[in-house]
Amino acid sequence: MPPLILVTNDDGVHAPGIIALFKAMRELGDAYIVAPDRERSAVGHALTLHRPLKVEELRDKVFSINGTPTDCVALAVHKILPRKPDMIASGINKGANLGDDVTYSGTVSAAMEGTILGVPSFAISIAGERPFHYDTAVPFAVEFGRYILEKSLPYDTLLNVNVPNLQKREMIRGTKFTTQGKRVYDNAIQEVSSPWGEKHYWIGGGTPYWEQGEDMDIQAVLDGYVSVTPVHLDLTNYAALEYLKEVWRKHREDSR
Amino acid sequence: MPPLILVTNDDGVHAPGIIALFKAMRELGDAYIVAPDRERSAVGHALTLHRPLKVEELRDKVFSINGTPTDCVALAVHKILPRKPDMIASGINKGANLGDDVTYSGTVSAAMEGTILGVPSFAISIAGERPFHYDTAVPFAVEFGRYILEKSLPYDTLLNVNVPNLQKREMIRGTKFTTQGKRVYDNAIQEVSSPWGEKHYWIGGGTPYWEQGEDMDIQAVLDGYVSVTPVHLDLTNYAALEYLKEVWRKHREDSR
Repeated sequence: MPPLILVTNDDGVHAPGIIALFKAMRELGDAYIVAPDRERSAVGHALTLHRPLKVEELRDKVFSINGTPTDCVALAVHKILPRKPDMIASGINKGANLGDDVTYSGTVSAAMEGTILGVPSFAISIAGERPFHYDTAVPFAVEFGRYILEKSLPYDTLLNVNVPNLQKREMIRGTKFTTQGKRVYDNAIQEVSSPWGEKHYWIGGGTPYWEQGEDMDIQAVLDGYVSVTPVHLDLTNYAALEYLKEVWRKHREDSR
Repeated sequence: MPPLILVTNDDGVHAPGIIALFKAMRELGDAYIVAPDRERSAVGHALTLHRPLKVEELRDKVFSINGTPTDCVALAVHKILPRKPDMIASGINKGANLGDDVTYSGTVSAAMEGTILGVPSFAISIAGERPFHYDTAVPFAVEFGRYILEKSLPYDTLLNVNVPNLQKREMIRGTKFTTQGKRVYDNAIQEVSSPWGEKHYWIGGGTPYWEQGEDMDIQAVLDGYVSVTPVHLDLTNYAALEYLKEVWRKHREDSR
């Protein structure tokens, strides 16, 4: 039986990136799309609890849902697919998912939901601006998809893949396993007026700055490499845990 | 100059939990509320990019925004407060934020956004069901707020505090520093019909199961302790990084 693969994204079911990823995953197995009916960028790991969700079958093995990427994965795994999938592929996102931005990312969050449900998952994004060269990213989607189907992934861990937006596959210098980078500053909020003269704020459009670091995702992409970061869902800062216990103990003593 | 403290939440500006937290933070400094105009639970670390946001000043130092908790923190820090705050307190949430659920949580995401912006932040939630005993949680909010103002927090790290929903402060057995627990399974999706007979799905209402572990947040709360987990934003699975490099290298060699 060929592997069952769920394909999703946060740019919506009609985005060119998901069509490219769907074709790529069909090389590896029996692929289904279950994706949001429209763009749901920067929604983070949002789950829709306050209203029912509608599933529409657009064509054979292609479904849309009026919800978030996380909703799509939950409903696909529990209600839509014929059985639990062997892998989840999320993307190809139009734009990078690097550094702290992974916590906002709908693309990565879909892979997080897959991981929570025990399905090996990866997210794949194009790091760059329009026009997006999906054809450059496709062979990497196939390569990592095949790897995951063969070798699976460590416990509680997904792969966050970012491919530089270069015109041809041959221009990519290779693949690097990386750590999540750190965004330093991004203060971009525009003030706009409503037709009735009321002041509003519009978040977006800023230029992020990044901490330097050779192993970091952002550096790999800047250097022309595909960045692959193993991301897990355990947010505990273990290094800080013992330190905090000690400082807290002293603080309590001092307070007496 | 007294410390400047931002108070926010995901239950909305009118929720009793944020009123209780506001009062608590006023004991420690000059407190402002900037919070969503209505409930925004399970929105994750969602940032609203597709439309402008409106800020309303409801009364002195109390603002509402028609956006997510993350939006509120970003706008408060950059546009609303007189200067960068010294601390951000998010909550008091009606319901636990434990284990993997922190990745869905609007309450914790507000503290994440604060951390990204370089402001020491904590999230505080009541672990339990209605009726919620906010009075039990308030002294812990004051205690941790004071601690953070005095000692700050480790780099890139927030505190995720969960207080058992007990009727009186005296019933709490103490405070434990914990690791993030692991939710094993939660398969709760209801099927409902629209007035026109169309099948819909409604996510929610399930009973989560948890992995056992003495150091874990969920266990501390079950045992009657306040759980305090240091949460960081670096999702890199460092333990898996070297392993994956090695397996990938072999996989590539085998593929040749």
